[in-house]
Order: sequence, then C-alpha cells, then structure tokens
Amino acid sequence: MSDLTGRVRGPLAPSTAVQRPLSIDDVEIHGGPLGRWQQINREASIPLGLEQMEKSGAAPNLRLAAGEGGGAFQGYRFQDSDLYKQLEAVAWEHCRHPDDAYRAFVAESAALLARAQRPDGYLNSHYQVVKPDKIFAELEYSHEMYCAGHLFQAAVAAARAGLGEDLLDVARRFAGLLVQRFLVDGDDGIDGHAEVETALVELYRLTGERPYLELAVKLIDNRGKGLIKSTGMGPLYAQDHLPVREAATPVGHAVRQLYLEAGVVDVAVETGDAGLLASSVRRWEDLVATKTSITGGHGSRHDGEAFGERYELPPDRAYNESCAAIASIHWNWRLLLATGHGRYADLIERTLYNAFAASTSGDGTRFFYVNPLQRRTDLFEDAYLGRRREWFACACCPPNIMRLVSSLGHYVATTSDEGVSVHQYAPGVIRAGGVVLDVETGYPWHGRVRFTVRSAPGGEWTLRLRVPAWSSAGDLTPGADGYAAIRREWQAGDTFTLDLDLTPRIVRPHRRIDALRGCAAIERGPLVYCFEQIDQDTDLDDLALTPDPALRTVERDLPGIGRTVLVEADAVRLPPAPPGGLPYTAGADPAPAARATATAVPYHQWDNRDGGVMRVWMPLA
Amino acid sequence: MSDLTGRVRGPLAPSTAVQRPLSIDDVEIHGGPLGRWQQINREASIPLGLEQMEKSGAAPNLRLAAGEGGGAFQGYRFQDSDLYKQLEAVAWEHCRHPDDAYRAFVAESAALLARAQRPDGYLNSHYQVVKPDKIFAELEYSHEMYCAGHLFQAAVAAARAGLGEDLLDVARRFAGLLVQRFLVDGDDGIDGHAEVETALVELYRLTGERPYLELAVKLIDNRGKGLIKSTGMGPLYAQDHLPVREAATPVGHAVRQLYLEAGVVDVAVETGDAGLLASSVRRWEDLVATKTSITGGHGSRHDGEAFGERYELPPDRAYNESCAAIASIHWNWRLLLATGHGRYADLIERTLYNAFAASTSGDGTRFFYVNPLQRRTDLFEDAYLGRRREWFACACCPPNIMRLVSSLGHYVATTSDEGVSVHQYAPGVIRAGGVVLDVETGYPWHGRVRFTVRSAPGGEWTLRLRVPAWSSAGDLTPGADGYAAIRREWQAGDTFTLDLDLTPRIVRPHRRIDALRGCAAIERGPLVYCFEQIDQDTDLDDLALTPDPALRTVERDLPGIGRTVLVEADAVRLPPAPPGGLPYTAGADPAPAARATATAVPYHQWDNRDGGVMRVWMPLA
Repeated sequence: MSDLTGRVRGPLAPSTAVQRPLSIDDVEIHGGPLGRWQQINREASIPLGLEQMEKSGAAPNLRLAAGEGGGAFQGYRFQDSDLYKQLEAVAWEHCRHPDDAYRAFVAESAALLARAQRPDGYLNSHYQVVKPDKIFAELEYSHEMYCAGHLFQAAVAAARAGLGEDLLDVARRFAGLLVQRFLVDGDDGIDGHAEVETALVELYRLTGERPYLELAVKLIDNRGKGLIKSTGMGPLYAQDHLPVREAATPVGHAVRQLYLEAGVVDVAVETGDAGLLASSVRRWEDLVATKTSITGGHGSRHDGEAFGERYELPPDRAYNESCAAIASIHWNWRLLLATGHGRYADLIERTLYNAFAASTSGDGTRFFYVNPLQRRTDLFEDAYLGRRREWFACACCPPNIMRLVSSLGHYVATTSDEGVSVHQYAPGVIRAGGVVLDVETGYPWHGRVRFTVRSAPGGEWTLRLRVPAWSSAGDLTPGADGYAAIRREWQAGDTFTLDLDLTPRIVRPHRRIDALRGCAAIERGPLVYCFEQIDQDTDLDDLALTPDPALRTVERDLPGIGRTVLVEADAVRLPPAPPGGLPYTAGADPAPAARATATAVPYHQWDNRDGGVMRVWMPLA
Repeated sequence: MSDLTGRVRGPLAPSTAVQRPLSIDDVEIHGGPLGRWQQINREASIPLGLEQMEKSGAAPNLRLAAGEGGGAFQGYRFQDSDLYKQLEAVAWEHCRHPDDAYRAFVAESAALLARAQRPDGYLNSHYQVVKPDKIFAELEYSHEMYCAGHLFQAAVAAARAGLGEDLLDVARRFAGLLVQRFLVDGDDGIDGHAEVETALVELYRLTGERPYLELAVKLIDNRGKGLIKSTGMGPLYAQDHLPVREAATPVGHAVRQLYLEAGVVDVAVETGDAGLLASSVRRWEDLVATKTSITGGHGSRHDGEAFGERYELPPDRAYNESCAAIASIHWNWRLLLATGHGRYADLIERTLYNAFAASTSGDGTRFFYVNPLQRRTDLFEDAYLGRRREWFACACCPPNIMRLVSSLGHYVATTSDEGVSVHQYAPGVIRAGGVVLDVETGYPWHGRVRFTVRSAPGGEWTLRLRVPAWSSAGDLTPGADGYAAIRREWQAGDTFTLDLDLTPRIVRPHRRIDALRGCAAIERGPLVYCFEQIDQDTDLDDLALTPDPALRTVERDLPGIGRTVLVEADAVRLPPAPPGGLPYTAGADPAPAARATATAVPYHQWDNRDGGVMRVWMPLA
C-alpha cells in the first residue's frame, strides 16, 4: 500500500503508523446513522454555525482587531476558537462535498484573519482589543495558544481540502512567533488549556517545519514543573501536577487532559518516544477502567468540568461534556493508528454512537454541552431544564461537533502493509490504495455487514474486520487485537459477510461504582439504551427491572426520531414510597405491586420528544 | 413563668412564642459531648480564632478603613464578617464563663469598628478601602448587608452578655443608614446573601426600634421580584426565583436559603404572619423528605454550594457545608419555639451530633468546610486530601462553629405556660423560671437520663421530655408533638428517670435516593456511624454488610478520640473485582468470599486518626 503522508485529506497524517489513515473522500457513507449525521450536519448544523459566527461575535471581534467596524468585544477570551473550529468543519465538509460557499467562507475568513493579525504574527482578538498589555502574560487562563492550536488545525484542514494556503500563511506566521518566543528565546510558558501541542504536530506534518514539532515536545515536557501559575483551580485542573510521563491517571479539566493526550501521542509517534506513548496508554487503561461512563462520556464532575476520583461516576450529575467525547475520539484514533489495537476502535464506536451522538438533536439544530445519564423533572440549573440549546455563551461544543461529523469518513477504515482494516461499519464505499470495497449494511440496527470487492491489486492481502468486544462473529475468530483477518488473493466481485450479534444485553456496573449499585443498563450492538418517561405507561421513577429481565426488540417510527429499534424489558411497578419525614428508615421497602414493561430507546436519540424524566441505569427489583 | 423577652442572654428572644428560650447561663453542662465541645471551644478554638483575626486580615482591613496602619486589603469582600462572628462567639462564651480578656477584645473591636465607621453609619472595610465608588451598587454579590447582619448579631450578643453597648451603638448607626436608604428613601435593593433579615429582627427585639423589623419585612417581601441582578449563578442561587410565600422547596446556595428561613420565621412570629410561617414549614417538610443527608447535612452540590434536586443525595460529593448545618439549627430552633413541635428538636439533635459535630477535630484546632459521607483515597481536590484544616481563605465556618458551641446552653431547654420542656439531654443543671433541675446522664453513650428537682414553684406544672422519633421511652407515651408530659405538683427532691433505647439500628435509604441504592447505615441513639479504614482488618472497599447484620456495641478508648462506643456489624469480604476494561459487564459479581466484621465509629469522630477511606453508607451483600 502507498504511504499516504502528505496526501491525506483528513485530520491526521502521521509520518509513521501501524495503521495509515485514509482521506475523508476515500470513504463514501450512504446512509445509516453516520450518513444521517453527515446529512443534517451539512443541511442544518453548519448553516446555523455560519450564522453564529456573526451573531456570537467571533467575526465581529476579529474585525475590531483589524481596526474595522465598531462596537465592543463580545464573549470569551477564546471566542476566536469558535471561528477556527467552524472553518475546520467547513473544510472537511468541502472534501466530501465541494461547495463554492465553503470556499468563499474560508477565503473571506482567511483575509479577515490576515488583516487582524499583527505584523509580528500574533493573533487573538480578545488580547489585541481588550488586554494588549497582557499578551502572553497570563497564559494560565489566556487560551492564547489554545486558540492558536485551533487556527493551525483549521489551516491544515483548508490546505488538505484544497481550499488554498491563505489560512496556512496566517497560521505559519503565528506559529513562527510561538517558535521564536517559546522555543528559540527560551520562554518556558505553557498554556493552561492544552490543544496547541497536537495542532503544532499536524502543522509540522503538513509543512515539514521541524521547529513546530520541537515546540510541541517542549510544551509537553514542561508540564508538571509548576510553570502554570495559579488558575485558582489547583495544579491538577490544567494537568500541571506531575510530568506527563509520571502521571498515572487522567485528572482535572477533562477536555484539557484529553486534548493533551492527543498531542502526547502525536509527539511520541513523530519522535519515536516509546516511553511517552506508554504513559498515555497507561492513563488510557486507568481512564477506561475507572472513570468512563457506559456511554463513553468522560468527566464526571460539574465542579471544574473535571474527572472525578476513580469510580466516581454519578448518572445524574455526570458532566460528560460533548467536547470531551470529541477529544476522546481524537486520542483513541491516534492510539489506534499507533498500535493497531481494536480496543481503541471499540471505544471510538461506543463514544461515537452514545456520548457524542447524544450531543445533537435529531434535526441538527440543538446541542447538549453536558450529557448526563439521568434527568429528573425538578431540574433547577436554568431555564432550559436540561434540554438541548441552539447555541451557548461558551460555544466550544457545537462547532467541535460539526468538525468531527464532517470528517467521519476519516475514521472508518485504514490501510497497512498487510491490507485494509475496517474499524467502523456503515453502508458505502471504501477506497484504500488500490482496493475498492462496497459495504452493504443496516448497522447498527442490523448485524450483517456485506463487503464486495470492486477492484483489488494483484496478490494476497488481508481484509481486517473489527469484531467488537460485545459480539461474536459467527465462525470468525478475532485475534488478540480484536480483528478478524481474512487473507487471500482477492478478486473483483469477491464478497465477504460479517455477522455481528445484536442480541440486546443487560449490563451491570462494577461493584466499586457506588452511584450505580443495584442497577442495570441495556445495550444492543454499539448502542447504549435509556428509558424516557414518554415511552412508559407509568411513572418511570416507580419502575424497576426484574432481576434477569427478558428483552424484546421492537422497530418503530417515532416523531422527532424516525425509524428506530426500541427494547422492551420485563419490569415491576413499585408501590409509592411512604411520604414525609426523613428518607431513612429501619423498615424495608414494601414488595413490588404489579408486573410491568419498561421501554428503552437508544440513548443518542433521547430528548427529541419532550423534557421528561430519563435514565440509562434502571434499578433492579 | 415570667416573660423572658429583654432579659434572655442568648441568641434568640422572640416577643411571642409557644416555647420561650432560656439564657445561656440558665443551663450548665457538666460533661458529655456537649460539655467536651464547650471545653475545647474555650480552650482551643476561640484562642485560635482570636489569633486569626489578625493573621487573616479581618482586623487589619478595618484599621485600613479607619485610616490606620498600612498594607493592602486582605481576603474577601465579606472578611469583616469573620470578626463579627468571632465577637459573637466570645460574647456568648462570656455569658457562661466571664473573662476580662473577652471583655477587652469586645471593647477594642468596638472601638476599632467605631473608628472605621463612616459618619453616615456605613461600615464595610472592603468597600471603604477597595471600591468606595461601588457602595450599595452591587448588592447581588457585595455581602454588605450580610456583613451588617453579622455585626448586628455580634452587637446584640455583646449587649445581652453584659459587655456594654459600644458595639450596639456602631450597629445602630449602620442599621439606621440601612433603614433610611432601603425603607424610608425606598431603595428596593436586597442583598444576594440573606442574613441581615434575622439580624434586624433580633436588633428590633433588643432595642424595640420598629423600623428594623419593618425593613426585615420589606427585604423578605422583595425576594422573587428579580431585584437581585445577575450573580452569574441564576436567580435560584440567591432565592430570587419566586416570592418567599410561593417557594415550595429550598433551592440554590444552601446557606443563603437557610439564613433566609431564620429571618422568615422571625418576621412571621413578630408580625403574626401565619401564612409566611406556613410557607417556611412547607419548605422544611420538603427539605427533610427529599434533600437532607442522614447526618442532617444540607446542600448536596459542590457546584454553587447548593441544594441539589429532590433525592439528589450523593455520599461522596455531598457538600454539606458546616455553615449550612449551623444555619439549619438556627432555623429549626425558631420553628421549635414558634410551634413547640419536637420534630424540629429531633432534627436539631441529628444535625448537632452529626453534620455539625463532624466539622471540628477532636482537639478543636481543625475544621471541615465540607462534610461528605464518603471519602476515597485518591482524592484530588487539593493538598489537604479531604482532611480538616486550621483555617480557610474563605473562613465563614470556623467562627460560625465557635458562636454556636459557645451558645449551646441556649438550645437545651425552654419554658412555657405549662412548665419546662427539655429538648437536648446533657448532664448538668437547668434553671427555668422558678424551677431548678439537676440532670444526670451518660447520653448519648447511655440511654438513661435522671432528673432531680432541686427547687420548684408551688402548684402543678409539666415536665416535658422529648422522646426522639427513633426511641421508645419505657412506659411513657409521647404526644403527637414528640414529648412525654409529666404534670404534677413537683417538690424539691423529686426525681424522674427517662430511659431511651440506644440499641443500634440498621437504616435504609428511601428508594428514590439513587446514590444510596443497595446500602445501609448504622445509627445508635442520635449518632450516625461511619466506617473508617483504620478500624477494619481488610480493605473497606471490599467489605459489604450481610443483608440483616447482627450489631454489637464495644466501648473503646481511641487515640485522638478518647472514650467512645464502636458498633461491630456482620459483614462479608467481597472477592476482588476483575481488573481492566470498562467497568460494565454482562456477568454477575462472584459470590462473597469470606465472613468478616465491619467496625463503625461515630461519624462526628471521623478523620481524627488518619486520612483513610471512610463511608457512612455500606453496601449490602
């Protein structure tokens, strides 16, 4: 297979990898949830995001920095990053669906950014307009390098998408300034919010400018030396408590930690630093075993948008920020390319179909910032009562969601010296080197995935198919890496069928997760299910599953959701609990009153009908 | 019995009440936990607090306001309130234990405050020194009236304690300014942090100045009109979401809500407003049934130091601020006096012996701000790893604790037209009107309480003894109000013995409390118990109680704790859970491996030996 570095039209192009990524447009997705998400992203979300670039102040702020137009700076110090993520979303969308409007938005934005950029290359509208005297003086919370990172990623995307290099010129001028100050001149400052590290490595991969990589190395090596002055949140908040190599578990602000890990793996891969890579893998293993929601959500604490302690995984107060799900997919993708191990693709799938997919409404016009696993009806946080919103004062999530969806094709399959590996299953076409594969499937609603070889190079090669940990694969036996490998001299017209087991499963929590004791959840294939009040014929809070409930699947068309598969579970209706007095008594609960059925809907489809009670984890009678 | 208004030497002196309070020095406490707390409060806590008045900036800030000394303002905008609470603690301590050093501290502080006070009566060192242009301009978070309230309470305490009226003069000048601006001149501003309302009523009770009461009425009536501009925390944070009469449940910042309720009951009692009182009782009933920890702790969320939703009561992340326990006792005491119902005394006892008592180390030199019901060992919040601290940057709790302990005698017994009511049991002497009672008891370690009448007025009167909801009382049958009433012509020398049942109890949570499902706790008498790692012979996280465990009590002398009563419970040792991978599996847990014993210590005595794992709620096998 050919080396794809340099010609990958997608977010990641490592110069060395066990698995090599494909370009976004090497993969066509013709339906299924992933296809649906791409469609609403293009038709609803991206247009909404483009509007918000004016409304939310992102573009007006940059005009102020350029000395154009009037008014005051709007929003947060990291407001520029909304525009950068929106640019990246548009660039990746352009790869799969060229559009002059996208080309124009990128060109105009690049021109505006060039006008706003200082001659020395500095670019941050908040600091240029509001606090010019504080430039690089309060890195612990300034987000200046964080915003630079998103600029670099947008510029790399525009260049790889064939949208010109104007944005790249802006990015390189700013990157040059960072290199001069923080590498050459020896300023040891690091940003309180990781993000620029992974962006610098991609910029290096695109341009070959080694100092970008060297700066990324230094920024990572400088963590854990107390160089981040007080954020008021303690040293763990910004992962400055320990050197990266010594940190055993993810801590502090979840998105900061997860963006940092993407940079850590990028640096380890490009510098061949096996020890650094091993430290990231060690944290991954601790994270998965002790700090991950069943949906793949990360960050269980509202307080500090942070990781909790080990096994601190409350369903109702799970923060599970949408951006943390995205950052987790970025990190796992890098680990998958570096190691070829299917456990990372498994977690990408779990996160993609659950923690991530739930962030967006069925019509693509409303978004969750926080993704809990339970919603009560007397919510008091705000006027939205835990519903999705069109936009946020801090709008980090919506454009982040858009850039991931527009690049979904990038995450479906890879190539290696042995052949083609398929990680995510969706109907469509995969072009990998000389191989063209048709994929027919109703996944994740149906378990059969049928591959037809449309064309293939001569000689033997291996078709590697991920077998998720929750499934058997007929008479196929996956290897220790989680893939079934079929090696042969494939001919055009050959077909191969993978059958995954979508029998619904009752899942129980580890006994150390105190917040979930005595409960069970339902999964089917990659989908985690939840129970919404609207689907029950009694008060959801009075329902409990039978100890070993029979599960039945039912196909339905639901308003606001469309075609879906519900799961019905045997349950009991609990008698009303005695009212009044303290809720702690010596008496046992009265016996269940009556048999009932509890009906579950895929978690990613929740909150599309009303604002009622929801829970993923159901008590067991 | 005589009307006590005007001569009560204690925190509360309502002009009308079903039960009338005694003076602090009407009650001598000769030992037991309450006696011990008073002793360490006097010997360790108060001296430490007096030192901190200089160290923490409270006194230096006021010298700056007085134009004396140099340096910069230290600490928070509400730093003055630390001094006010310290003054109140010293004044109440002086009632039971006169001390020239206390008299000097109060006199010097009053003189300093008089020098710092502006001619117009305004007094707040932060606004006078740092933001003179913002005086009364940012009430939503300024704490100016909050600090004034603590000043008024300190002044009332000093006057009632016979420590002169210099502090009262300062208070009245400030109160006069508030009355002029916010009552006479019609400014509708209200403070974002309730506290001044109850203080204004006490100032009225002491001075007879009706405008103080009228201002308190207006401040309470003004809530729920959106007059509190954005605190950035939403209208519920400061209880400005609904008019007080319409609010059905406590919401937002717990201490704000609970201080407000004290003022609500004070105003209702002084104005005869039955509807207002009923609204407070309604919120009390909802709070107790759905938002109260077994320890009596209030406020389950770190995020906003706030009440959670109904049944949101996590043991590990329970915030349960020490100040909220104190505020709850203030509120319940007012409801007890207003209604005479024992359920309020029951909650005072539960809170006093658990949520409140746990806030202070066994030697009185370290304090908890947050009082969770579970501690893990990989805590990452801060360097203290969840241990008590000597002081805090925001030091609202320590002096608050001191003022409650120094006034404990006030909460033991009351008088009414029928006779004497005893609410809390401690060895010592109770002087109530013409009655003198000796009390002999080892409570709460032992259940027998023996009363001897030392002197009594002629004629019949009733001795009312609270029978806690958790206990029988031999052949005594308590009334619906929770008190056993013994009416007779008591003669000097008469004795009466109350036997309370201290058999340890297994207590289960209401099924709606998701965070406690499948767990049980142990109570004995008024004490909630907890399990600390140091008392177990295996990893506490591997222990579970048997479904219906036998409980055994054991008296012990423990380092850092002294004499106490442990409870041993039948338990099982759980096998180690499978390591690695996601903590969600289709398989059931393996069967318990071996029989074991779990040993519990009174919750209020935890964290006096090491920083190990602790849990109040234990899983049931």
